[in-house]
Amino acid sequence: MWSSKCIWDIQYNLQEYDYISSKRITCFYASKPQPHQFTVLVRGIPVSLGSSVTESVESFFTEYHSSTYLSHSVVRQTGKLQRLLWQETVIASLSYEFTNVVMISQSDADKWYRRLVKLKAKNLPHKRSGRDGFLGLFGRKVDLLDHYEKKLQDIEDNVRMEQSSVVEKEVPAAFVSFKSRYGAAAAVHIEQGVNPTEWVTEPAPEPNDVHWPFFSASFLKRWICKIIVFIACIVLTVLFLIPVVIVQGLTNLDQLETWFPFLSSLLSITFVSEVITGYLPSLILQLFQRIVPPIMMMLSSVQGHNALSQIQKSACFKFLLFTIWNVFFANVLSGSALYQVNVFLEPKEIPLVLAEAVPSQASFFIAYVVTSGWTSTASELFRLFPLISIFMKKKFAGKDDDDFEVPSVPYHGQIPKIALFGLLGVTYFFLAPLILPFLLVYYCLGYIVFCNQLLNVYAPKFETGGTFWPIVHGSMIFSLVLMHIIAIGIFGLKELPLASIFCVPLPFLTLLFHDYCQKRFLPIFKAYPAECLVKKDHDDQNDPSMPEFLDKLVTAYRDPALKPINYSGRSDGHDSLLQHAA
Amino acid sequence: MWSSKCIWDIQYNLQEYDYISSKRITCFYASKPQPHQFTVLVRGIPVSLGSSVTESVESFFTEYHSSTYLSHSVVRQTGKLQRLLWQETVIASLSYEFTNVVMISQSDADKWYRRLVKLKAKNLPHKRSGRDGFLGLFGRKVDLLDHYEKKLQDIEDNVRMEQSSVVEKEVPAAFVSFKSRYGAAAAVHIEQGVNPTEWVTEPAPEPNDVHWPFFSASFLKRWICKIIVFIACIVLTVLFLIPVVIVQGLTNLDQLETWFPFLSSLLSITFVSEVITGYLPSLILQLFQRIVPPIMMMLSSVQGHNALSQIQKSACFKFLLFTIWNVFFANVLSGSALYQVNVFLEPKEIPLVLAEAVPSQASFFIAYVVTSGWTSTASELFRLFPLISIFMKKKFAGKDDDDFEVPSVPYHGQIPKIALFGLLGVTYFFLAPLILPFLLVYYCLGYIVFCNQLLNVYAPKFETGGTFWPIVHGSMIFSLVLMHIIAIGIFGLKELPLASIFCVPLPFLTLLFHDYCQKRFLPIFKAYPAECLVKKDHDDQNDPSMPEFLDKLVTAYRDPALKPINYSGRSDGHDSLLQHAA
Repeated sequence: MWSSKCIWDIQYNLQEYDYISSKRITCFYASKPQPHQFTVLVRGIPVSLGSSVTESVESFFTEYHSSTYLSHSVVRQTGKLQRLLWQETVIASLSYEFTNVVMISQSDADKWYRRLVKLKAKNLPHKRSGRDGFLGLFGRKVDLLDHYEKKLQDIEDNVRMEQSSVVEKEVPAAFVSFKSRYGAAAAVHIEQGVNPTEWVTEPAPEPNDVHWPFFSASFLKRWICKIIVFIACIVLTVLFLIPVVIVQGLTNLDQLETWFPFLSSLLSITFVSEVITGYLPSLILQLFQRIVPPIMMMLSSVQGHNALSQIQKSACFKFLLFTIWNVFFANVLSGSALYQVNVFLEPKEIPLVLAEAVPSQASFFIAYVVTSGWTSTASELFRLFPLISIFMKKKFAGKDDDDFEVPSVPYHGQIPKIALFGLLGVTYFFLAPLILPFLLVYYCLGYIVFCNQLLNVYAPKFETGGTFWPIVHGSMIFSLVLMHIIAIGIFGLKELPLASIFCVPLPFLTLLFHDYCQKRFLPIFKAYPAECLVKKDHDDQNDPSMPEFLDKLVTAYRDPALKPINYSGRSDGHDSLLQHAA
Repeated sequence: MWSSKCIWDIQYNLQEYDYISSKRITCFYASKPQPHQFTVLVRGIPVSLGSSVTESVESFFTEYHSSTYLSHSVVRQTGKLQRLLWQETVIASLSYEFTNVVMISQSDADKWYRRLVKLKAKNLPHKRSGRDGFLGLFGRKVDLLDHYEKKLQDIEDNVRMEQSSVVEKEVPAAFVSFKSRYGAAAAVHIEQGVNPTEWVTEPAPEPNDVHWPFFSASFLKRWICKIIVFIACIVLTVLFLIPVVIVQGLTNLDQLETWFPFLSSLLSITFVSEVITGYLPSLILQLFQRIVPPIMMMLSSVQGHNALSQIQKSACFKFLLFTIWNVFFANVLSGSALYQVNVFLEPKEIPLVLAEAVPSQASFFIAYVVTSGWTSTASELFRLFPLISIFMKKKFAGKDDDDFEVPSVPYHGQIPKIALFGLLGVTYFFLAPLILPFLLVYYCLGYIVFCNQLLNVYAPKFETGGTFWPIVHGSMIFSLVLMHIIAIGIFGLKELPLASIFCVPLPFLTLLFHDYCQKRFLPIFKAYPAECLVKKDHDDQNDPSMPEFLDKLVTAYRDPALKPINYSGRSDGHDSLLQHAA
């Protein structure tokens, strides 16, 4: 049964990879011409003295890509401008990850303007007075109309001044557009400059997927950032155990009673004490884990990725490693996990240690599937945190329904969780088959819930194009290898040396299979092949809308912070209209 | 002193990498248009039922690379033909690696023809009779003129018959030529087919660098071969110790006297016995090591490389690992090396074990530099083995000076040896600085000898373009990391924990430096950047000889076995001329 399950897993993985890669190609063929298909992001542009980045890009690409080069737009340092425009939303974006509600796309000016218009439309005197302090609660009492108009005017003046000065603040990076997809692909795949750290090209993300805030351009800076982030991730993953262990240690009853004496009568009720000792540690653990995805997102954006999609993918991978370590290994190696890290320095011992530790935690993980898996899926349906957060904002920050934006899919938070349950299923199915029905329920529930969420709740902010699949595949392979290692250890413990020896080739065979998949399928997920690109280019030649599309391409990659801003004029017009109507 | 040496090493490596990569670019700019710059090797060509590989290639490239595609030549299964043409040379090629004399480029027919012409020119009756058996020693006495003519006729008939039948035996691989270097580079770098295992492209080698015999085309076959070769290399490297240890064990005097009783009087002379016990083991070791490079070459060619340059590079890397393991580690961990392999399964123990074992072998390695390093460099100058082999061939196989071909540079045999002495220098300079003057002499000697050999003896069969440098750089980095690990162990042994801890970051910093170099320089060694390619293409546009060159390009990659053969006609003509003269 065991070996057939392995073969089934492998077979399934192969078919699934094939299926998703074919879907990806189909999706590409069906797509309309999109700016990012024709565009390349170039970083590390060398600038000679006395010339600008724009001139440098223009001369390089007209010289070396004369037949395919179309246009370019240089990236500018808009950090200050962004702070001016999105002042309020910066705070919102910090809370975004917890509440999963607001996406940074509306500028502050937009919001003030919409509030102003609404206020005028309602024209109710008691609504027109408010306070100008934090969350509209404190501060002087002001006339809201005047207040909003003044705010808007302030923002506009500041932004216009900053916009005029920012034109000179060029970052040595540019979005270069080409006349054909194949031309863009050639520029991405062929090393451009003699110095590989200059003229570094990569496929451009979709225009609204670009992550403008941390636009890092220099090769060396990105390389150093990557190393720092790598170390930070390891430190975070390993040391995250310490607070969790401390918190879990503090949640025993005696400690609580000493700290909060007034609770002692309540804690003496058996039911309450059971709930507290049973659920509090896992609740605290869950809360702690909620902080991690935004931290991983932050680390990934520091790392030098310039698109939300790349940041999410990178954060997804980081959070997956984090989850596997902090949920699976930390619980398997139990409280003394930090001490037992030593095991990984003696590879010979790993199978035996795992074989001893893993089976003893079977009941814990079955409970984990129910307490964490089922409840998290159910809470995903209710979206409790976002609900509370919206309620609070409406109540205290004076936000209304128009301020609400459709949330994007939190791939980086959800995929690792789902992959973890896959890991539990693969490693425990032969140690404690009782886990399987629970997992089946989890996956059925998850399928229904996420179908609903994806269709009715979330609005994708970018096309993933199936690029998250290789991460899932990788986690599956890791689970299989881990299972083989545990099997080797268990057969060793049970003194069945022959069975143990026969298991030794299995992890290697699985890794070989992985290698084959990487070679056979992964290239499709990294870039589209020439066959597809040229076919699409040929199709476009007969498309009458192409010249118009190429014209638009020139301005597709303009930083949203640099868009001309003119609200007061519009609001004045609106104002006078309203006054006329009144 | 120690840390300054480290920094100096790193500094030197960086400068050297920079220097060699700039040399590589300069060499490319200075080069004339060459077929391999415009050509791409395509493997895994899918063929639909009822069509041929030629049609498939033609339709694919005219459709997807219509603006740059020029022509193609499909590879054919010429194994049988090659056996017919190079029957004699196959034996020679086996001995090539040992003697380093004959390169497979003259066909048998060529040789017979030249012998025939020479025989006729001399027209001496006593030279005209010989024997037709092995090495001209045994067999019936025959008239050489008749014999040669018959031989030539036979070969010609067979070859013509085989050539006409081989046209249909297409291998799903082709050399596809483009009109520009940039077009060829785009085809190499962009994935061609939707299925990444089909239409696999790689840069074409120089026409005379192509290794026709094992022309493997299928992706899966190459993948499996690679895995098998990988395993074979590990097995060979690890198990090579066994025969060496056995042989070394057998070379003690008692054993020799029991085996060869007649030697006992000779062995009782102290001088003789000292020479035998002192030199015999290392001589046997050296002889054993001479077998390895050809085996590595064989493995590399099985692996699916299709150019002599690639095969040599791959063999060079394999032989380097082999040398480091079998000379350095085997001697450091001494006789019980096989048992001590266990150390590598307990990474924590490695520094201590090395710190104990490495210093004790200092005197052995100083002696090794003299016995193996100095003598091998000196013997390189004399080329003793090739000399003997040529002498034997001339004497017994009836070969004359015309049969002698200029040897090519044996990079794969020499670079690992030189790198090994670098490893010894880096690891021993702070344990036994006495090794440094010996190494200095070795490197000075080596510099002079190899300057002479490269300028006056060898004729390069292909342009390396500096692509061996990354291997040397890698071995240098490995040496540095090994030195750091030994230092950590030694400070640990001497109970200086603080020094030991301060050394711990060093290997990581060195690896980071290596990573930087890989990113900064390695891309230049893998492919030429667009800047260079387009510049060269522009230069060519003004070159009047380009149309002629492109015409020649069409036939540049024709299998030499398929060239039309016509000796008897020429020899007849020659014959009649000679008879007239007589």
